[in-house]
Amino acid sequence: MSGPIRLAVIGMGKIARDQHLPSIAGNPDFELVATVSRHGEGEPDTPFFHSIEELAASDVKVDAVALCTPPQVRRAIALAAIERGWHVFLEKPPGATLAEVEALNEAAAAKGVTLFASWHSRFAAGVEPARAWLADKAIARATITWREDVRVWHPGQDWIWQPGGFGVFDPGINALSIATCILPRPFFVEEAELDVPENRAAPIAARVSFRDAAGVPIAMDLDLRQEGPQSWDIVVETAAGTLTLAKGGGELTLPQGAAAPPASDLEGEYPGLYARFAALVREGRSDVDVAPLRHVADAFLRGRITQVEPFID
Amino acid sequence: MSGPIRLAVIGMGKIARDQHLPSIAGNPDFELVATVSRHGEGEPDTPFFHSIEELAASDVKVDAVALCTPPQVRRAIALAAIERGWHVFLEKPPGATLAEVEALNEAAAAKGVTLFASWHSRFAAGVEPARAWLADKAIARATITWREDVRVWHPGQDWIWQPGGFGVFDPGINALSIATCILPRPFFVEEAELDVPENRAAPIAARVSFRDAAGVPIAMDLDLRQEGPQSWDIVVETAAGTLTLAKGGGELTLPQGAAAPPASDLEGEYPGLYARFAALVREGRSDVDVAPLRHVADAFLRGRITQVEPFID
Repeated sequence: MSGPIRLAVIGMGKIARDQHLPSIAGNPDFELVATVSRHGEGEPDTPFFHSIEELAASDVKVDAVALCTPPQVRRAIALAAIERGWHVFLEKPPGATLAEVEALNEAAAAKGVTLFASWHSRFAAGVEPARAWLADKAIARATITWREDVRVWHPGQDWIWQPGGFGVFDPGINALSIATCILPRPFFVEEAELDVPENRAAPIAARVSFRDAAGVPIAMDLDLRQEGPQSWDIVVETAAGTLTLAKGGGELTLPQGAAAPPASDLEGEYPGLYARFAALVREGRSDVDVAPLRHVADAFLRGRITQVEPFID
Repeated sequence: MSGPIRLAVIGMGKIARDQHLPSIAGNPDFELVATVSRHGEGEPDTPFFHSIEELAASDVKVDAVALCTPPQVRRAIALAAIERGWHVFLEKPPGATLAEVEALNEAAAAKGVTLFASWHSRFAAGVEPARAWLADKAIARATITWREDVRVWHPGQDWIWQPGGFGVFDPGINALSIATCILPRPFFVEEAELDVPENRAAPIAARVSFRDAAGVPIAMDLDLRQEGPQSWDIVVETAAGTLTLAKGGGELTLPQGAAAPPASDLEGEYPGLYARFAALVREGRSDVDVAPLRHVADAFLRGRITQVEPFID
């Protein structure tokens, strides 16, 4: 493919406007040719449709789509796009179930299109240097603390509380996308406690104990009720001192005197994702790593549910 | 490897005695060289150990182990066996989480040993003919009904009620191991309702709605409180009539006049599993299909939990 990739954005909610549209506008590899939203609104001067079927029936030429809808409806739209031969960028999480992501991956391979399961937090500035520094360290323990105020970050978004919206694991999966990237060995859920409000179907808080293949404990504390300062921190204690990755991967602190690996040269999370998507499309490859979603599924599978007080948005 | 495969059975509970030992005794490809059980008892005239470490420290020569412990403790034992270069037969489910099964699969590949994630119901007599008959049929819907009396089939087994024991999905995963085998297209959880007794951590009943890649609905009804006649049935309605697979895959009924594919020539579920395990070891291959476990994880992930009345064993 030569020339810009003609891209349609599907699902015009908060994440599409806050992150996708500016990143697309700033990347000459892409040309925004349409937006699609069942209920929302489009962009001035860009063709707008209410469904992927309407888009397909139009005379707009499309090479790829970015899916920013809630995860519960993503599979059907992604499959329709793949069947039309369009490349697909999936917002995180790539689906509401693991089986559907596996099937999309197979469908994309059969059709010869690119499928990209994006994990934006992996493109935060501190993540790659953290991975490089940890690669040869003796790790004693890791602690993940992800506590945020859902009223600020998901205002009035009911889908997060529905089955398949994952509740506190919607931000928590960002932490897992980083942890699976920077920690040198695979790890596994050993115990999980999930707090589900009486009036909701998804957890508002969770504590998960993992252990890695060498026996290293990894503790994760997630909460959507954090007012005041927010926490998106991963702390890794090693024989060579403590690494702290704060602000969702954006800010790396190494022990005093440690030689810092070169900082990432990415311009930001979503610009990094779109650079990666363009490269995948040009090279005719897919990138579908389900590890973060698999950990969330495992936490539900091994979790003990506790009902907690109702949450009123 | 020439001569019989020297096998140790680890976890001497109900399934080991009811199924594994008779199948091993009836298969000349295997020689039972030891049994291992933390609390249980061994077999007369066979070396007995309380742990895999005790077994490894003994002078008993071992080529392979069959793991019949509850799933929650299976990963560590399987990994220890793989690291010693032993082939591993995993009872179903292959683990308490998906991530650990993936890691075991990678460890076995790195070590060059066979890992077999067994699904005994796939070796029931009607399963392969059902798969063959359905392969070219237009399917309208499928219904899975798995209702049994937990007091009969899991008497006093507390592990099934613990996180990672899966509750009603412990038998339900057998149905899924058949469904993923006989239905021609992948399918996905769309909705799940899980009934968890107030005094337990795992569901006693569940209703799961799947849909396959062509939109065909698949309804699953699971219950552990079924007294009287037990149901382990899969009914598939097609344009060519209705297929019924009853008795856990053992009894196939096709529409009147349908040409029945040749019956399976297997001698039974567990003898079939051991024949397969011997072939995998001889050929130096692994067989790890996580699809049934992935559906269970997806059902928990997308499930809506309802508390129901306490269950007293």
